[in-house]
Amino acid sequence: MSKAVAAPPSGRRGRDARRAERAKTSSVSIPYITRNIPLTELCHSEALDIIETNAETVLEEIGIEFRDDEETLTLFREAGADIDGTRVRFPRGLARKLIETAPAEFTQHGRNPKRNVQIGGDHLVFVPVYGPPFVRDLEGGRRYGTIEDFENFVKLAYMAPSIHHSGGTVCEPVDLPVNKRHYDMVYTHIKYSDKPFMGSVTHPQRARDTVDMCRILFGTDFIDDNTVCTSLINVNSPMTFDETMLGSLKVYAAANQATIVTPFIMQGAMAPVSVFGTLTQALAEAMAGLALTQLVRPGAPVVFGLFSAALSMQSGAPTFGTPEPTLVLSAAAQLARRLKLPFRSGGSLCASKIPDAQAAYESAHSLAPAVLCGVNFVLHGAGWLEGGLVSSYEKFVMDIDQLAMMEVLCRGYDTSENGQAMDAIREVGPGAHYLGCAHTQANFETAFYRSTVADNNSFEQWQTEGELRTVDRASKGCKEMLASYQPPPLDEAKDEELLAFIAEKKASFPDSNVA
Amino acid sequence: MSKAVAAPPSGRRGRDARRAERAKTSSVSIPYITRNIPLTELCHSEALDIIETNAETVLEEIGIEFRDDEETLTLFREAGADIDGTRVRFPRGLARKLIETAPAEFTQHGRNPKRNVQIGGDHLVFVPVYGPPFVRDLEGGRRYGTIEDFENFVKLAYMAPSIHHSGGTVCEPVDLPVNKRHYDMVYTHIKYSDKPFMGSVTHPQRARDTVDMCRILFGTDFIDDNTVCTSLINVNSPMTFDETMLGSLKVYAAANQATIVTPFIMQGAMAPVSVFGTLTQALAEAMAGLALTQLVRPGAPVVFGLFSAALSMQSGAPTFGTPEPTLVLSAAAQLARRLKLPFRSGGSLCASKIPDAQAAYESAHSLAPAVLCGVNFVLHGAGWLEGGLVSSYEKFVMDIDQLAMMEVLCRGYDTSENGQAMDAIREVGPGAHYLGCAHTQANFETAFYRSTVADNNSFEQWQTEGELRTVDRASKGCKEMLASYQPPPLDEAKDEELLAFIAEKKASFPDSNVA
Repeated sequence: MSKAVAAPPSGRRGRDARRAERAKTSSVSIPYITRNIPLTELCHSEALDIIETNAETVLEEIGIEFRDDEETLTLFREAGADIDGTRVRFPRGLARKLIETAPAEFTQHGRNPKRNVQIGGDHLVFVPVYGPPFVRDLEGGRRYGTIEDFENFVKLAYMAPSIHHSGGTVCEPVDLPVNKRHYDMVYTHIKYSDKPFMGSVTHPQRARDTVDMCRILFGTDFIDDNTVCTSLINVNSPMTFDETMLGSLKVYAAANQATIVTPFIMQGAMAPVSVFGTLTQALAEAMAGLALTQLVRPGAPVVFGLFSAALSMQSGAPTFGTPEPTLVLSAAAQLARRLKLPFRSGGSLCASKIPDAQAAYESAHSLAPAVLCGVNFVLHGAGWLEGGLVSSYEKFVMDIDQLAMMEVLCRGYDTSENGQAMDAIREVGPGAHYLGCAHTQANFETAFYRSTVADNNSFEQWQTEGELRTVDRASKGCKEMLASYQPPPLDEAKDEELLAFIAEKKASFPDSNVA
Repeated sequence: MSKAVAAPPSGRRGRDARRAERAKTSSVSIPYITRNIPLTELCHSEALDIIETNAETVLEEIGIEFRDDEETLTLFREAGADIDGTRVRFPRGLARKLIETAPAEFTQHGRNPKRNVQIGGDHLVFVPVYGPPFVRDLEGGRRYGTIEDFENFVKLAYMAPSIHHSGGTVCEPVDLPVNKRHYDMVYTHIKYSDKPFMGSVTHPQRARDTVDMCRILFGTDFIDDNTVCTSLINVNSPMTFDETMLGSLKVYAAANQATIVTPFIMQGAMAPVSVFGTLTQALAEAMAGLALTQLVRPGAPVVFGLFSAALSMQSGAPTFGTPEPTLVLSAAAQLARRLKLPFRSGGSLCASKIPDAQAAYESAHSLAPAVLCGVNFVLHGAGWLEGGLVSSYEKFVMDIDQLAMMEVLCRGYDTSENGQAMDAIREVGPGAHYLGCAHTQANFETAFYRSTVADNNSFEQWQTEGELRTVDRASKGCKEMLASYQPPPLDEAKDEELLAFIAEKKASFPDSNVA
């Protein structure tokens, strides 16, 4: 197969014109995706009933640990839970009942209102990689991340039309003191992007600092009524919330800011090795944390999150792109919908050390289920490498191409008269070809997604151009993006106020690298 | 994230024992997949109605060309179609009515009855790459395929537990004369594998030779009642069947052997650039060809096939793993189900020249929809590279790992008591870990799919081992497979009869390289 046919219209001039046109259209960004295709639901509803029943048993019989936080225990006691030391047991149905006040979807505002995202319902928001201490690129190899790398990933996410959110810890800037780097991280999101972002969760005070910076940026009145920050609260699975995460959760919920309550599970270590066991425990954990947000502030926006990876029983490392996490993901998304809550999972996950075939297989088999199964907030949408230890520049550029394809997929079918193309079929008829027909001429510029990374040239041309690998093309694309970055305008008075706030805060206590 | 935790049980001895166990279990092969997960259906049924109505309009108004085959025209005329030269126009509903005699599913027999595959219904059959004139491996690069390569791919497919079928033209053996190579190809499938296979379609006489060889292998009586061969009949889209394909189709259908009637479409060249236009034309073409099989022999097994790739309007080459073919695939599978017919599409398709990240992204985004959307006969399941111009040894080994994962995914959820794991959750409780608990010990060997290609070791170990790429590991795995190949026993008398048949046939006419 693979007969090459001439491209219409041909010639250098046509090619330059098309390239210019493409450059123009590819920068047209939509703020988020609204899906127009049915959901993939891999788990039958009777099976979901079993998980829900078992999760209630976990909540009632075993309970959840809420450590070193008297206020939380008091809130649960007053709501009718049974408190035994730091163990909270929930009468059947209580947690589910408490969650009812949470909104099914909410708007997270960006400082540019055109970038507001809708989280929940039929919507998808693609968010960059979160958390890696290392970065990697083709020339520099693997090294600790710095604030410069952090800025670069924020810039890339800002420029990528298929990324809807600036994310949070796009990499860990380890060149800054642990107890102060959050100021620079939040400021970088504000300064170098105008997309919505995530706040600091590594200490309740850092969550407060994030909210204070949001008050400066958006105004105090605005943020009390509106959500401008969505932050990640990981559960210490199994069945434990610690003081740090609880503190941050309460700060954000009290300020009407969104949290993503996320059981963080390596199956076989933090939860049972079985898919159903993992789902049961994760549902119980999530429901307990979600209920707490509503006790702190009924109606506070919240997202049901789940991060699950199968553990390699050989190396002890997490694995990705395998079938078990896909089964977990689909059922968890269904459980979240039954709770009428937005759902968050991972996007382009992989264990590979380099952005090669393994990385791509694993990432694709993580991203496709996330999109098809109806994840609303797709964290780690781009840049994730090596089980989340590395933010990769080239992988980021490869992944944003994949995310853009998912956006087209979610548009579904064009059933219009032009889409039906009956005139074209009549015009061409048997045995002829469609290259020159009116319908092709009118539609070929937009008919197919055009990859920004794939090489679709002939073998001979690819050979002439140096037999480049995908990673080589992505490296080139990444450098071009960063070279052409233009910052979005930021109100000067607000910028000064933010910088003054940070300077004052930073001067008020000594640097420390203790987490 | 990515905290590495110790693996249970540890130590070299435990590791060796586990490896031996794994080698044992990984060779346990099931003959085909029966899906236990719901279908993904991306197209709404009202939209499918539009396609069906438009396809009837194409059949009625434009018609289909059946060239240089009076017998076919006569069959259609007698069935009530309107014949104008070589153009066949179908009154609305006629083609659909004629197809009703085709079976919804059928068994294709292998010479080893344990390898019989069920084609249609809830079943999936994974089949190797079909058609490439070139082969590629890490050491030898890209070169023309030979009969030795052909044998190697048949051996690999025989050994791969996730491949259910020996396929057909796993690569083109260009070192043999065009007009005689089919004898060696079919014999190679029979001799080096005991899985079901595909027959020659490049000339009606070669189809007859295939059937004759099947008669020797299975017995004349057996094959008149049973299907032992499934062969690929491509439509010359748009809307044209040529003499060669028609002749082969009639030979196979008359002998009760299965054909896969496949519109072969590069959108924008052989069909409209739009998804709906492509689907309309493909449905009309397939229905016309499918109807013909039933006129030749009512009840003859047949598969609705579709190969569609979006054309790169820049290079004129086909592209893969993009959203448009996924939309085509899902709707086409739905249309086939509405016709109550098995459906065939591609599996691990890609345009990449090498088995790198592009190849993997594209292949995964072809394979996942094929599995989720309910394709029954997944051609090109492993080994496809460079738009089908190349059969890749390393890609084959990468792909069979992905196919094995799809098999696990299709098993769906284990809702048993052991799967629910409530005892494990009770035993471990909050804040502890599951590594040593009884449930983990009892299940960890089989709980997670273990990739045969991915590296899930620590970064440090991967570095120590030479920073291997996926393709390096696949190359090693491929060599190990071929070195350990053992042929399945073949009845000596049948083998001699086959060789005598081939020798006599080859001697009866001169070699030729004219197709």
